[in-house]
Amino acid sequence: MKFCSACGGPVELKIPEGDDKPRYVCQSCSTIHYSNPRMVAGVIPLWQGKILICKRAIEPALGTWTLPAGYLENGESVRACAIRETREEAGAELTEIIPYAMINLPFIDQVYFMYRAMLQDTNFQPGFESSELKLVSPEDIPWQQLSFASIREVLKHYCDDLKTNQFPFREFSIKPEHRY
Amino acid sequence: MKFCSACGGPVELKIPEGDDKPRYVCQSCSTIHYSNPRMVAGVIPLWQGKILICKRAIEPALGTWTLPAGYLENGESVRACAIRETREEAGAELTEIIPYAMINLPFIDQVYFMYRAMLQDTNFQPGFESSELKLVSPEDIPWQQLSFASIREVLKHYCDDLKTNQFPFREFSIKPEHRY
Repeated sequence: MKFCSACGGPVELKIPEGDDKPRYVCQSCSTIHYSNPRMVAGVIPLWQGKILICKRAIEPALGTWTLPAGYLENGESVRACAIRETREEAGAELTEIIPYAMINLPFIDQVYFMYRAMLQDTNFQPGFESSELKLVSPEDIPWQQLSFASIREVLKHYCDDLKTNQFPFREFSIKPEHRY
Repeated sequence: MKFCSACGGPVELKIPEGDDKPRYVCQSCSTIHYSNPRMVAGVIPLWQGKILICKRAIEPALGTWTLPAGYLENGESVRACAIRETREEAGAELTEIIPYAMINLPFIDQVYFMYRAMLQDTNFQPGFESSELKLVSPEDIPWQQLSFASIREVLKHYCDDLKTNQFPFREFSIKPEHRY
């Protein structure tokens, strides 16, 4: 950030009075510009024990496999975001949508919130962000070709939890060195 | 937003190619400026069946009662934020920190993530954002003097769950008309 989005004046990085963290502060109008992590909402879509995965047709990680997920938009609930992303990326409708995991990626200022859900039916087709969709059994997950550490780790937890058929809410952080 | 934070040029609100939502786009350098909801992390701090509440010494809602909670910062996990806010607002340390609720406030672009936790001891004192701290029994919660709908609703759920002593993960949205 170099300029104030309110007045166009130059900003400087400094700790505002009463704060303890550096923020971009406008040298002209004194507006303080805060930057905060973004949320990503997504889902593990299930059909008869299989998981619907999507091959990415866009960067980043073009050509790798992922789960429906995307940035939470203003005016949207986290659940609505997960439903929307599933429609956009897989043309699919969900039911029995249950909170499953929160994944912190503090080194890139992201927080994932993932649900487990059932597909309403097998009427799915790739949206423009996906080149291919596939229902895979847990033992056939392409672990070496997954898009992001968040997706890999939530699927690992899910496969672990399948052994006991208990799915407690999971909360974990990914370390920068395990990013890929 | 009126000016581009990258180059200082004027921005216009338009739907970028391949997008379906209006964004602020710089007319000079074409940077797309996304705006996304912010996360608030907080906690219901417990001691021998009582809840630690904090009287706000700052606006908004100065003089009303709240729970330790605040905006998630870049580089921070949600759990670390709840711990930090509890230190800052109540000078208290937590243990047995368990995810409890996600509260959507889409009309103000906020998502609260609340934990239940035990206080390590009764060594707490108001931080500069609090004028007073109090341990209250559930039946003594000052319902008419709580700071925010998010705090009121999560405490309602908590009191309901106390009846069965079961605390499943809660997810709900607050409607604009129930904001206060």
